[in-house]
Parts: sequence; C-alpha cells; structure tokens
Amino acid sequence: MSSKDLGITVKKAEDLSEWYTQVVTKAQLADYSSAKGFMVLMPYGFSIWESIKEHFDRKIKEIGHRNAYFPLLIPERLLRREAEHFEGFTPEVFWVTHSGNNELGERLAIRPTSETIINESYSRWVKSWRDLPVLINVWNSVLRAEITSTKPFIRTTEFLWQEGHTVHETEEEAEKEVMTILEIYRRLVEDQVAIPVLVGKKTELEKFKGAVYTTTLEAMMPDGKAIQMGTSHHLGQNFSKPFEIKYLGKDEKEHFAWTTSWGISWRLIGAMIMAHGDDKGLVLPPRVAPTQVVFVPIHYKESDKEIILQTAHHIADGLGKHSIRTYIDDREQYTPGWKYHEWEMKGVPLRVEIGPRDMESKQITLVRRDTGKKTAVPQADSVTHIVSMLDEIQQSLLHKAKETQAKLTATTNNMKEFAHIIETTGGFVKAFLSEDNDCEERVKLETGATVRIVPFEESARGQCVYCGHPNSREVVFARSY
Amino acid sequence: MSSKDLGITVKKAEDLSEWYTQVVTKAQLADYSSAKGFMVLMPYGFSIWESIKEHFDRKIKEIGHRNAYFPLLIPERLLRREAEHFEGFTPEVFWVTHSGNNELGERLAIRPTSETIINESYSRWVKSWRDLPVLINVWNSVLRAEITSTKPFIRTTEFLWQEGHTVHETEEEAEKEVMTILEIYRRLVEDQVAIPVLVGKKTELEKFKGAVYTTTLEAMMPDGKAIQMGTSHHLGQNFSKPFEIKYLGKDEKEHFAWTTSWGISWRLIGAMIMAHGDDKGLVLPPRVAPTQVVFVPIHYKESDKEIILQTAHHIADGLGKHSIRTYIDDREQYTPGWKYHEWEMKGVPLRVEIGPRDMESKQITLVRRDTGKKTAVPQADSVTHIVSMLDEIQQSLLHKAKETQAKLTATTNNMKEFAHIIETTGGFVKAFLSEDNDCEERVKLETGATVRIVPFEESARGQCVYCGHPNSREVVFARSY
Repeated sequence: MSSKDLGITVKKAEDLSEWYTQVVTKAQLADYSSAKGFMVLMPYGFSIWESIKEHFDRKIKEIGHRNAYFPLLIPERLLRREAEHFEGFTPEVFWVTHSGNNELGERLAIRPTSETIINESYSRWVKSWRDLPVLINVWNSVLRAEITSTKPFIRTTEFLWQEGHTVHETEEEAEKEVMTILEIYRRLVEDQVAIPVLVGKKTELEKFKGAVYTTTLEAMMPDGKAIQMGTSHHLGQNFSKPFEIKYLGKDEKEHFAWTTSWGISWRLIGAMIMAHGDDKGLVLPPRVAPTQVVFVPIHYKESDKEIILQTAHHIADGLGKHSIRTYIDDREQYTPGWKYHEWEMKGVPLRVEIGPRDMESKQITLVRRDTGKKTAVPQADSVTHIVSMLDEIQQSLLHKAKETQAKLTATTNNMKEFAHIIETTGGFVKAFLSEDNDCEERVKLETGATVRIVPFEESARGQCVYCGHPNSREVVFARSY
Repeated sequence: MSSKDLGITVKKAEDLSEWYTQVVTKAQLADYSSAKGFMVLMPYGFSIWESIKEHFDRKIKEIGHRNAYFPLLIPERLLRREAEHFEGFTPEVFWVTHSGNNELGERLAIRPTSETIINESYSRWVKSWRDLPVLINVWNSVLRAEITSTKPFIRTTEFLWQEGHTVHETEEEAEKEVMTILEIYRRLVEDQVAIPVLVGKKTELEKFKGAVYTTTLEAMMPDGKAIQMGTSHHLGQNFSKPFEIKYLGKDEKEHFAWTTSWGISWRLIGAMIMAHGDDKGLVLPPRVAPTQVVFVPIHYKESDKEIILQTAHHIADGLGKHSIRTYIDDREQYTPGWKYHEWEMKGVPLRVEIGPRDMESKQITLVRRDTGKKTAVPQADSVTHIVSMLDEIQQSLLHKAKETQAKLTATTNNMKEFAHIIETTGGFVKAFLSEDNDCEERVKLETGATVRIVPFEESARGQCVYCGHPNSREVVFARSY
C-alpha cells in the first residue's frame, strides 16, 4: 500500500459523507460485508468498542448490575404480546421460517431488541419483593432491516450494543434507574468520548414503542445533523402486565412490577469519528484510544538504533505504570514518514519521536494529533509531560466539540426563520411547540426536523412555532442521522 | 424460597442427568427459554463465562491475536462456496426468508460457524505477504438446530463461543498456529477449569467439515461419556481457494494462503459442572469462580456485629491485594445456615465463618467446599492461609478429575470386551483401528462409541479391534455427549 492510498482524498468540511466513509475504511475501523446492510467491525474498530464497553461495564457493575445472555430468536407469539411494541418493530424484523429443510411450526424473529424474550424469563424469576430489583445487562447484537442506505456505525442492519433490562418494586425506583443510567451514559459520552450532549425526554411520537417515556442523549455533528447517542426507557407496567411479572410484596399482596430498559450502541464510534476527525483522518480522545501514545524511533545509522529503542522502552514502561497504552513502532520495512502518516490516519492522540538529535540533547519530541503541535520535553520527566498532555488533549477535544455545538444551536419562534435555519446551517433549534401532535408531525413533514428532546426542566412557556398556540412547551428540534 | 427448594433431590452417582439439570437451575447458572432448544445464561453462569473468556482473551492477545465482529447472517451463495462445509452444516442451519413483510431475494443463513463470511472479507484484506498473518478472534453466538433434546451448556441450539480465524503465508505456519491454540486450550481446561484432557486428531469421519484435519481436546465425565472441549482446525487451502485468499509473495508471485479456525464454547461450563459437582451442588475451581471466598459473619447479638464485620472487611481487603475475589454476605434476612446452603449450592470454593468465639480466640474458620473440611487459622495470617488453600483446592480438583479419568480408561484388542466396557462402565477405550472407514463406522453403529482422538504420537501398531487387520493405528474410543 503506498502512502497515497492511505490518505483521505476529500476535505471534511466539503464532503462529510465521503470523508466519513474514507476514514472508516482507510483507518481500518470497519468494512462493508457482502451481506447487504451489514458491516464488519475490524480489529482496530473493535478495540475502540472494547474500550467503551469496559468502561461502561465497570460503571454499571459498581452499582449492582450483572451481565447475562438471552436467546437470539423470539417466537412470534412472544413478540406480539405487547401490541404497540410489536407494531413498532414488525416492519424491520427478520423472520426465520426454516431450520435445515424443515418449515418451523412458528416463525421466529431475530431480536430487534429483547424486551419480550427477557421479560418472559423475568416472569418466572420474580416471585417476591426479595427477588427485586433485577438489574441485568446484555452485550449482544440486534437486527433491524435498514431500508435506506448503509452508513457504517450509524445505520446498519445489525449492530453491536448493550441492552439493560431492570425490574423494580415501585415506580419511583424504576424512574430513578432510568435517570441513573442516563447519567452514566452522559458521563461516558462527555468524559470519555468527548462529545457534549443534550439530555431530555422524547415526545410521544419519538419515544421507544412500548415505553411510558424515553429519555435520550443527543449530540450535534459538524454538518448540523443531530445523532441519538443512547436512550433509557421507563416502561412502567407496559411489559410487566402482558408478561405477568408479579411479585408478592411486603404487604403480602401481589403487585405488577415496574421495568426499565436502556441501550447504547457502536453508533458512539460513528459520532466520535465525525465529531473529532480532520482532513488527515481519525482523531481519538485519549480515554478511548486503544493506543494512546505511539513511539516512532528515528535512526538512520544502525549504531543509533539500540540506544533509541532502549529509551523508548524505558519511557513506555514508565507510562505503563500510569496505565497508559503505548506502542513502539519499530517496524523496519517502513520509513518514519510513512509511520507518521499511518498513525495520524488512525488517530493516535500523541506521537513520540526519538532521533539521534533528541538523544544528544536528552529530550524527546511530542506531537499532538489534534493540533499537530510539536513540543520537545526532557527525557527525564517525559512521563509526567505525556500524562498531562493526554489529559489536555481529552479536555481540548471536548471543548472544541462544545464550541461546535454552541455554534450550531439557535432559538426562534418564527416558522419561516425556523425552516431557513434547518435548511441552511442545520443544528439544534430551540422553539416552543404545542402538545398537539399534529404540529410536531407537520414540522417534520415540512422541514425534516424532529423533536430531539423535551428538556427535563421546564422553562417559561411561549407561542408554538407552528400554530402559534400560547402556553406551549420548549423543545429542541433538529434534522438527524 | 425455602431451604428445601434450594437442595438437590437426587444423588449425583445415581442419576447424573437429573442431578445436572437441578444443579444448573438451582445454582441459577442457566434457565430454559420459551424458544425451544434455547437457553438463558443467567448472571451467575455468565460471570463464570466471563472468567473463562477473560483468561483466554488475554492469552491470545499476548501472542498477537485481536478481536473483531462479523455479520450474523450469511448469504446462501457464500455458505455454498465450500461444498463439504455446506453439506456438513446445511441440515442444522436456520434460514431467514423475510424481513418485515418482504420476501428476501436470497435466503440468509444464521451463522452455524463463520468461516465463509469471514474468509470472504479476508479475500479483500489480504493482498501481500506484508498483510500476513491475519490473527483474528470473534466472541459471538452461533446457531445449529438441535434435533435431539436440550441439555443446558452441552447441547443447545444457540451457544456462546469464540471462533478464531487465521491466515498464513505457509502451511507450516498454519499448522503451528493450530497447535499453539490447542496448547492454550489445554492449559485453560486443565489449569483453570481443572479437567484433564486427551489431545489428538479427529478421524476423517469426525473432523470438522471443510478441514484438512481437526485437532481436539477430549475430557471424560463421571458417567463414562466423553465430551469434546474444543477443536482447532487446519483448513489448508480448502477455504482460501474457493474464497480466493491470495497474496503476492516475497517471490513476487501470487499464492493461495493457508488458513485455520478454532473454537471453545460455554460447553466448558457444562463439563465443569459434571466433573466437580457433588450432592450439595456446584463445586467451582477457584481460578474460574466469580466469588472465590465468601464470608459469613455469625452474630446473635447486635453488639458483636460491628467488630465481626470489621474483621471480615479487613481480611477481604487483604485478599483483594492478592486479586482474590471475595463477597461478604451480611444480608440480614437470612440465617448463617441458609447462607451456607446457598453458597455450597453455588460452589464457592472457600467459606470463611467468623463468630463471637472466633473473635475471642483471634481466629477464623475456613471451610473448603470440595472436602467440607474445617480449619481454624489465626486472623493475623489468614490471608496467607486462604491464598494457599485456594491453590490447594485448585490442585486437588484437578487431581481428583485425573483419578476419575484414569479409572475410566481401558485398553483392549478384543471386540467383545470392547463392547462390554462401552456398555457397562463406559470411559475411554484404547484400541487399534484399521484406517478403513468401514470399521470405524461399524464400531459406531454397533456400540455407539466413536473415535475421540487419534494420538499425535504414534505408538506401535497392532491388530484392528474390529476386523483384525494388522498394522492398525491406536485410537481412543468412547461414547460421547
């Protein structure tokens, strides 16, 4: 592969979509599959997913959640048990009709989400208040037939995700769980993936089919389109009733339990690519980068090689003690320039160059991926410098993403201006909207913008941007992925 | 749940099958699902799987393997591309024919294993010798329709496993990979899961459909039936040719690559239950136990409680420094006796009892799950005692399993005796077998025994147990799960 093949041939600002596709494939994050609509998550992409997964997995285990695994296939009669849920998912469900040459007695759905198959188990596991809460999470893949085109990580028929499913004694506890998880998601997305989000509720029109209400995190991409980063649903008793999840309470009476479900997917990786990448390729936030620091030794003479590699290993060992993930690129078949190119494409946050001149002056050269800025630091305290520079990069990426979000956030109560903003810059548009569903649907039809969130904290009310009805609540609109 | 519900109602020695089912469900490892043939892996069972998974994942990453994810569904034309492979798997494949209300243009198979869909990607990824080796592993689930009855962990339609798929420049490298992985498997099974295995090759009849040859690990269960614990396949160029995995060699010529594949599944958990469990329930080897030490504080007076719990936490903290996984069972609603019962059922290797008398004498009481033996040790050096006792338990379980294996291993060259052994005690039976496939099939037909392994190291040859042909190779037979 020549250096040229590695480079991105379009500017991010000029054609985000083509830029995105090139970054995904050239940084070897993912590949298309011969199964239409499906994506292969390649090792480099997978290691980013592992990093996100490990973080979230640890956070939910700390507060008592545990992982489990439930069947891939859901008998049709189970999927039908909650009517709104079934209606919502049936157009995109894959149906298994045969095993070998035998036609099955009942069609089996490949899970589009697992509420039905999981709640069916819960109805057998939950008998008494002593069995509650049930706090279970599943890491798996789900399938939803994509009728429009595939966009790796963002819109694929199959996607990797986690789905949490919990059962509680009271409505209050269930609602608390919904918000606890939403907050863990928010911190994951903002503090790890370095993308700021708006949090709030979905409208009736946009909520998860089967939920009482859905809470969500929404991020803004540089092209002015929003992306849903995760959802946490209060299911009330909508599932516990048809699935008969009942428990004997402390009052010796039988009660229907209260359930929640919540999920994030590999979509986070797609949003991260779009939010932070630049014309050279991927830019990874240090906290999720599989390799945080890459060492590129530069030695033209064989005699320099040993001491330079020794120095690299020495510093890498020191970084290891701070749990910093390093890679020493001592491959002989590539030039330093080729290596810079490759690691820039792959978004490694910090590059360390060590050459003969660095050895003479007892220093090393640090090159930030996000800014390209070079800094020479003494070898003696290089570990301290690197650790703090990684932290600086993490903060700086979040800061820049916040600026983008702020630039792409507007407020209006004029429908013409609303349509103009949506059509031109895009972004989040705050406006008042009457609770008449018709207004929401008409705005969507006329502008392509949907309500991304209804803020948790209600502000003063105002005139509906569409129908002018006074006393309408404030919502945030955007076109979205 | 009363204590009685928790107990196993049959003896392991009298009805292994019923005993097994009770342990699986009462220790809350797994549950049946309303989707026939499918199993739910419950949190406790999943945490054992996580423990096995983390160990293996680390081992293969240390030698350069990386994880990835490939699509669940395989277009029929891809699955058909390697003829023997397709013929082997097609009777048990689940076919997806519809998405929503639309009939698909081409049927899609739910992966029974991923050679075809993965090699199709590899054909695009591998261009030059520089791209080799490709060392990729996948953690996923696969589906194979089970026509006979379901046995949790052992025989289920869907199972969790890992499948490794590698590509190499030369045949020697591929064959070396097959053996490297087999050895990692052997150490995992023997050193972690504490089950001794025989390793060797499968016969043509028993090999993976599509492989040049299959290597395997076989364990012996207490009922005299063997169980396949993992397989590592040399695929030669059987897949690289139909899938066109070609590379430009150092010689500037195009070559077909050499591939391997290998897998272990949650079956290991099933074998572990059968191998080590007793009439009280599960017995877990310390190295794979999610909780290795459970503390049961015993306090009848509220005044004793605080100091006893403090002591437990102090020792648990000390154990944490040795990476020992502990749980302090301070639940108020259960008696110590109830707790003993529960943790015995769940197979926690070591129980620590701390009561008022222990506090007076500045000691604690250790109770081994495998032997029931109680030992009082001074609180001051309890950590050292516990660490070494866990190691002792680990060794002891392996030792006992080796004794069982030895007891259930026989040698004969007499067909009548062979049939008698298989029919009565069962176990591994070493015998000579001519390389005429007919003999192998006839032995299988007449006795139900199959060749579990052909040893790697060829011993002296002898007369075929079935046809008397001299110069036959030694093999190991058994009935199997």
